[in-house]
Amino acid sequence: MIKKLVIFGVGLIGGSFALALKEARGVRVVVGFGRNPSNLKSALAAGVIDEIGADVPAALAGADMVLLALPVGQIEPVLRKIGPWLADSTVVTDTGSTKTNIIATAFEHLTHKQQFVPAHPIAGAELSGVNAARANLFQEKKIILTPTQETSPAASALVVGAWQACGGKISYLSATEHDALFAAVSHLPHVLAFALVDYIAGREDAAVLFDFAAGGFRDFTRIASSNPEMWRDICLANKASLLAELSAYADCLTHIQSALAAGDGAALLKIFSNSRAARNKWLQGGGSD
Amino acid sequence: MIKKLVIFGVGLIGGSFALALKEARGVRVVVGFGRNPSNLKSALAAGVIDEIGADVPAALAGADMVLLALPVGQIEPVLRKIGPWLADSTVVTDTGSTKTNIIATAFEHLTHKQQFVPAHPIAGAELSGVNAARANLFQEKKIILTPTQETSPAASALVVGAWQACGGKISYLSATEHDALFAAVSHLPHVLAFALVDYIAGREDAAVLFDFAAGGFRDFTRIASSNPEMWRDICLANKASLLAELSAYADCLTHIQSALAAGDGAALLKIFSNSRAARNKWLQGGGSD
Repeated sequence: MIKKLVIFGVGLIGGSFALALKEARGVRVVVGFGRNPSNLKSALAAGVIDEIGADVPAALAGADMVLLALPVGQIEPVLRKIGPWLADSTVVTDTGSTKTNIIATAFEHLTHKQQFVPAHPIAGAELSGVNAARANLFQEKKIILTPTQETSPAASALVVGAWQACGGKISYLSATEHDALFAAVSHLPHVLAFALVDYIAGREDAAVLFDFAAGGFRDFTRIASSNPEMWRDICLANKASLLAELSAYADCLTHIQSALAAGDGAALLKIFSNSRAARNKWLQGGGSD
Repeated sequence: MIKKLVIFGVGLIGGSFALALKEARGVRVVVGFGRNPSNLKSALAAGVIDEIGADVPAALAGADMVLLALPVGQIEPVLRKIGPWLADSTVVTDTGSTKTNIIATAFEHLTHKQQFVPAHPIAGAELSGVNAARANLFQEKKIILTPTQETSPAASALVVGAWQACGGKISYLSATEHDALFAAVSHLPHVLAFALVDYIAGREDAAVLFDFAAGGFRDFTRIASSNPEMWRDICLANKASLLAELSAYADCLTHIQSALAAGDGAALLKIFSNSRAARNKWLQGGGSD
């Protein structure tokens, strides 16, 4: 049982974590900090948090766990602010979509490095804010932990227990592996979807293009409705891996362009068939579950 | 009332057209031709068609309408086969995703050019085959007609009436406009999705990549489960427009790569914000409905 949980960023992820833990009776008191006062008021009214944090030292006193459920770019200022007030009994964890940079930032600002447990829940949606939060968001979802060489087993165990109480399934990766993997399967497709919608929207005939866009376009671009600030931060934080993925993908497109220009139907068929077969195999194996 | 409808290609589209027309009591007899005998038997057993076509001249005799619901690349051989047996009272229409090339092929093989009504229903799914067919597939969906200068008003009216009976909403475009529009909002995203899955599947670490791919990846790549043969044909048929789109999109990616490499968060935020705003505006306006 966590007696006191302090959440920085009570949005979809932070709010859902609080709701899920409360439903599992895994936490007694939740204190919430955030940039948006009306969002915090909603969180309090909905019972997602029990207190709106006002004074950082007072809130952190006696806290078992601090959850940083913030856009990647907002983690650094918060760590800087809370660093001096954290006791060595307080575990600090996060939910950021990139890990290497967050670990570097945490090591810069935290005195008790053994208390830091980097994590990334693979859940979310293009929705944001506490009003989108729900207790079952993490049910059967992967929760990736990327413990550092400093992370203490006890600190890890507290975070693992909390996420399991929320219904999550724990996986372990190194931070480097994590960032390389997610550059390919998450950050790249997000950028591709944002790029397509921005391209279509920027054309003179955008209105008629959108008028004829159908279900395939809608699903392909769903992730282009994601939070732009959050994705700017993720891209910048995982710049090297994402640049490598963009470059590799651009090569694939060049290959397709050449095949198409040459009228090479066999080459196109091979790519499309491989793709369908691989995706259907993935879905049969449980897909994103 | 269509007394006799002959469908070439009794799959998702052809089968759903027959089911919808039957439900609307808009057709008396449906004869189905196709390459796959077991699919035709399923169609007969399910009451989608009333007869499996055997003899082309006999089937076409007295037909009010011929529907070519075939992958774009299979339309030419069928037109070649049926051309000599079509009476000037039989309207011929199609459901192809490209129009300029199909019109050229039709003009080559049809004696009664005024009877040809090119059409493209904006419905479908990554599913295929008659077992995926359903009577409400076209409900409130756009049906694009691209009549030629030869198309007779009476022939158009028959096709319009049939699609309206199926629940479709008629739009008109020139074939050239159609092909340019769909290169951008349909053919390009399909190629991008196929390319991403083929790229991921071709990597040495494909298994672990797929293991961590989540809901965003699933939706982004849904259209990469589409029929590869059909999409090869569409790409080849709309080669010039699609190459132009691929090239324009590659320029957008290059722009993003440069911004990212320079750490230009403002440029990224602008692209992502534009994209989200445009997509959300599109969804609020009814999106793909």
